[in-house]
Amino acid sequence: MALLGSIAGAYSASVLDLAFRPDRTRDVPLSRQLADHVATLVAAGRLDGGARLPPTREVAAALGLARNTVAAAYAELTTRGLLQAHVGRGTFVVATGAPPPAAPPSGASPTPAGREFGWSGLLSRAAHAARVPAAFRRSELDGPFPFDFRGGRVDPALLPAGDLRWAFARPFQTRATLQALAGHRDPWGWPPLRRAVARRLADRAMRCTADDVAIVGGLQQAIDLTARALVDPGDAVVVEQPGYFGAAFAFAGRGADVLGVEVDARGLRTDRLARLLRTRRVKLIHVTPAAQSPTGVPLADDRRAELLALADAHQVPVLEDDYDSELRWSGPLRPTLKADDRGGHVVYAGTFSKVLFPGLRLGFVVAARPLLERVVALRALADFGTGVVEQAALATLLATRGLDRHVARLRRAYGARRAALLDALARRMPAGARWTPPAGGHVVWVTLPPGTDPERLHHAARSRGVAYTGGEVFHVDGGGADHLALAFTALDVAAIDDGVARLAAAVRAARGARASHPARGRAPRRAARR
Amino acid sequence: MALLGSIAGAYSASVLDLAFRPDRTRDVPLSRQLADHVATLVAAGRLDGGARLPPTREVAAALGLARNTVAAAYAELTTRGLLQAHVGRGTFVVATGAPPPAAPPSGASPTPAGREFGWSGLLSRAAHAARVPAAFRRSELDGPFPFDFRGGRVDPALLPAGDLRWAFARPFQTRATLQALAGHRDPWGWPPLRRAVARRLADRAMRCTADDVAIVGGLQQAIDLTARALVDPGDAVVVEQPGYFGAAFAFAGRGADVLGVEVDARGLRTDRLARLLRTRRVKLIHVTPAAQSPTGVPLADDRRAELLALADAHQVPVLEDDYDSELRWSGPLRPTLKADDRGGHVVYAGTFSKVLFPGLRLGFVVAARPLLERVVALRALADFGTGVVEQAALATLLATRGLDRHVARLRRAYGARRAALLDALARRMPAGARWTPPAGGHVVWVTLPPGTDPERLHHAARSRGVAYTGGEVFHVDGGGADHLALAFTALDVAAIDDGVARLAAAVRAARGARASHPARGRAPRRAARR
Repeated sequence: MALLGSIAGAYSASVLDLAFRPDRTRDVPLSRQLADHVATLVAAGRLDGGARLPPTREVAAALGLARNTVAAAYAELTTRGLLQAHVGRGTFVVATGAPPPAAPPSGASPTPAGREFGWSGLLSRAAHAARVPAAFRRSELDGPFPFDFRGGRVDPALLPAGDLRWAFARPFQTRATLQALAGHRDPWGWPPLRRAVARRLADRAMRCTADDVAIVGGLQQAIDLTARALVDPGDAVVVEQPGYFGAAFAFAGRGADVLGVEVDARGLRTDRLARLLRTRRVKLIHVTPAAQSPTGVPLADDRRAELLALADAHQVPVLEDDYDSELRWSGPLRPTLKADDRGGHVVYAGTFSKVLFPGLRLGFVVAARPLLERVVALRALADFGTGVVEQAALATLLATRGLDRHVARLRRAYGARRAALLDALARRMPAGARWTPPAGGHVVWVTLPPGTDPERLHHAARSRGVAYTGGEVFHVDGGGADHLALAFTALDVAAIDDGVARLAAAVRAARGARASHPARGRAPRRAARR
Repeated sequence: MALLGSIAGAYSASVLDLAFRPDRTRDVPLSRQLADHVATLVAAGRLDGGARLPPTREVAAALGLARNTVAAAYAELTTRGLLQAHVGRGTFVVATGAPPPAAPPSGASPTPAGREFGWSGLLSRAAHAARVPAAFRRSELDGPFPFDFRGGRVDPALLPAGDLRWAFARPFQTRATLQALAGHRDPWGWPPLRRAVARRLADRAMRCTADDVAIVGGLQQAIDLTARALVDPGDAVVVEQPGYFGAAFAFAGRGADVLGVEVDARGLRTDRLARLLRTRRVKLIHVTPAAQSPTGVPLADDRRAELLALADAHQVPVLEDDYDSELRWSGPLRPTLKADDRGGHVVYAGTFSKVLFPGLRLGFVVAARPLLERVVALRALADFGTGVVEQAALATLLATRGLDRHVARLRRAYGARRAALLDALARRMPAGARWTPPAGGHVVWVTLPPGTDPERLHHAARSRGVAYTGGEVFHVDGGGADHLALAFTALDVAAIDDGVARLAAAVRAARGARASHPARGRAPRRAARR
């Protein structure tokens, strides 16, 4: 998507070198990117003081940008003291050595953004590795959309606002809790919450005490800390494919070699895992056994047993990501993999953010002591621990069963939305689309009809107000574009039906375009409908 | 402090090998350590099924443990199904292969703690490096003590409980905020808080906008993320000596070579830094210029300028840790180092946890764009971002000036406590003790009288109910035992006076012991009194 532009015109010679690549996948506004680029050219001496810049209209045309984007960049550079506008004459680079007009002597802007400092040469290997893939940014970070089927969002109307308000205010209401807030900073977590989590896990057949539980800042931190504790750069890590992208990004960010193992209608293909483990030393296996993310299938019993046997035989730890186990749609709530983990290979991680709201960063890890101690030590160095107010609030919600009441309500509401989504898909999607009714979780994983162009579908859907997460994000091998994930948590039943109608229209429009993009219109590699 | 014990007696031969090292610096209870150790011996086949264990009384005597510690370990092992007691005969190892009596078939305990899994061989280099030094654990993690001069604690009576209660409840009270909570997860932070932080920094002569601010989970996370972004294992990082231990631990945890540069009464000795930079490539310099931690001295103006010039000349980023700048005791509140940072070398990090309460994990980073983007990308992979409720609550406290009112109250209260501590020290401490009246921060850094035995002082003080942070923690070279840090934030004026009286008595007691520990009674290396 990068655009290479250069500006030609009757201006300073060095302006001809204004090769600028707007990167639409970054969080940074294009105007700022352009301003930073010009600032770099000035700092490097490639744009001299006194040079006249082309009018915004010409720059906009040459670079394929909106004119007000260029105008905003010029305005910012003027504020930074790098450009100066002269009425009737144009915009000029301020002569080097001249004090920036708007800057007080001892108050230079902190944002010359690498104008004189070569940051990229100073970054660590981890910083270079920690890139959030463009497919994710494009899928996830724009909006809002009226028909938003992307994950990680909840319906504010379903939040237990009264209970939450009370629970978050409560820590400040008694001297005893205030005393604890004032003196407490424990990387293991707030003891009452650790006890409550241990009790709750008994429902999943796990036998653990508060001592076996460490509170962390959400499931993503559980994944990151486990990776920090077990994975060195270059180590191999196995993820499900399709699988949860946050895990794959975190492992890749540590410089790991991330290997995808196929998932089918019975969960992770342990036969393929077995073959891989015979040839590669693997340091960690990430799985979502309760309801595979994103397909929603539970890991079959024989495969659970085989996974544990493989972990034992090859001495590979397994990270059980139990992200959404409160949301179960068919079959009983099963014991965790950790409950069957006689060898102590399994690192269990859960979260409260999914069932409450994404801005609550609260999760927990249960693992064998020698590992859990290392995880907590790494945690202490990383950020000292999770905020106490939210831990105390959650402990209150657990103790008063406010969370249980909320989960029961959510199951009813989300159950109806799941049914509405499956029904709308069946009625409205064109022939050839397939999907798996999820046994758990909050997503329906859809295989697009053969011949659907994913790029055109993206634009056709968004132009109709529909957002979804594209399947590429769940794949580490560049595949998955023939799939999409539809979350049913943030929209009500009526919006789901309307949104699927719009999505179906977008799919039809994107199929008509097949002929022009033959390479992208490949058939789905597997049929997931059961 | 590790104890090597072995048990001899008329028991199974392999019991003679029961070499156990209780580690009193770990968070794990000794009973659990012993239980884990025995479990490991059983797993390794060094204690056979049917072997009879010595009575708890004998084990306790042999290992120097309390008898009920050993009894608790035996009880835990019995629960785990590894031991079985027979009335009148003793305690025996359960024969291998026999099902653990207490474990249901599919519910094995998740805590056999490496009984069959060799975790230590699987840990990453980072996990091995991430050790919290024993001196820190001993200084910081026990208690409570009635006269607690350790840092990181505040007085609950000074917390603005009413404002906090209101601010934390408020996000749940309007549909608009609930909507944001339900859909928002931005690793850059909550936009209204980013704007409020940028406005606040204008008071320190910094020119930045919300775009230049990233919210993080406290100052420790700011340090960790900056290290992740800039420091690879083996890289050299400079810290102040004495200096903030959390920074040194975080850098060491990344495998950095942590180099201490001396601090004197004018702050970091930039002459020594200059000498170091001529011979070593340094990737990051950590400084606390507003009020050096722990000495409380501001960095002198000429040294500020020299530090920035050195950063520029050697292209070394500087991490400005502005941990306590709200607490200023003499001289004006000065611009940040970042305000003078024309080259863009300075990464500025601040926190709200110090001025509110330690269980609030909220800080912020201001840095040049290319670096800040990497910091935020690393943050996104680490934990997705800071909880939204606490960010919204703090934005409310800033917007309503509730935080400013609190800071004003704190300055009065802490100012009185600082004066009381300095007064009590002058009246009560034995001759030869020295200290610096801090210009900022919450600590008085004390040099002990020559000949004080730090180990005996530790015990003498604690037996009198007095806790402090020992000086070793602030040194990366093993020195500093002739100093201690006294925080004046958590105790009221009367308790401060009483506590110093007890501390002075402890110092006198620890000086009498000099003859028996001549090697430890060395003279302080520098006089810090001004």
